[in-house]
Amino acid sequence: MRALLLVSHGSRRQQSNEEVNQLCERLVEEMGKSFEVIHSAFLEIASPSIPEGIKQCIEEGASSVTVLPYFLAAGRHVAEDIPSIVTDAIEKHPGVSISITRHIGVSEGMPQLISSVIKEG
Amino acid sequence: MRALLLVSHGSRRQQSNEEVNQLCERLVEEMGKSFEVIHSAFLEIASPSIPEGIKQCIEEGASSVTVLPYFLAAGRHVAEDIPSIVTDAIEKHPGVSISITRHIGVSEGMPQLISSVIKEG
Repeated sequence: MRALLLVSHGSRRQQSNEEVNQLCERLVEEMGKSFEVIHSAFLEIASPSIPEGIKQCIEEGASSVTVLPYFLAAGRHVAEDIPSIVTDAIEKHPGVSISITRHIGVSEGMPQLISSVIKEG
Repeated sequence: MRALLLVSHGSRRQQSNEEVNQLCERLVEEMGKSFEVIHSAFLEIASPSIPEGIKQCIEEGASSVTVLPYFLAAGRHVAEDIPSIVTDAIEKHPGVSISITRHIGVSEGMPQLISSVIKEG
C-alpha cells in the first residue's frame, strides 16, 4: 500500500495549517489511484510532525511512503532539515520504502500556475 | 505599462533566492504579453525588499503593479505582513495602481501541480 505525505512548514495560524489539510483532501480526489493513503505533516509548530506522519502512514498499512516537500524554494528546510528527518525515518522503519521528491517550487508547471492565480484574481 | 512583482519570503541560502529569480525569467516567457515588467522581491532577508521592488517597477515606467505573494499557505506573512507593506506603498505612490493577488497555494491547479512533481520524480 502506497502513502503520500505532504510536508509543509507549519504556521502559528491554525487556518494556515487547515488550508494544507484541505489541499490534502483535494489530493485524494486527484491522486487516489496512485496513493491509497494521503496525509499531511508539518516541519515545525503544527502537528503531526514528519516522523509522526510517517508512522501514521505505516500504521495504516503503507509499505511505501513518498514524502513531498510542499515548499517553494530550496532553503535550509528543503535542503537539509527534511532530508535529515527522512533519513532518520528510513533507519527507523527498515521494512518500509521511504522516499522524498523534489520540492514543488521546481515544477515545470509553476509559471502556468502563477498565471492562473492572476487570472483567478 | 503593467508590472508583476513576485514576492517570496527570502532565504539565507542565496541559491534559494536565485531559484525564485530564475522562475521570474520563466514568467517573462509565460506572461510577457500581460506584463511588460516582471521582477521578484523578498519579504525578509534577501534583496530587493517589497518597497524597493515596487519602486523599481515604477521607475521602469509601470503605471500598475500587481503584487503576487509566492507563498503556499496564508500564514501571518500572507495575511498581515505583505498586505500591510502594500498598503503603505499604495499611500506612497498615489499615481500608480498597486494591487495584490491571492497567494499561490489557493490555486485550483495545485493538486495537479503536486501530481506532476511526483511524476517528474
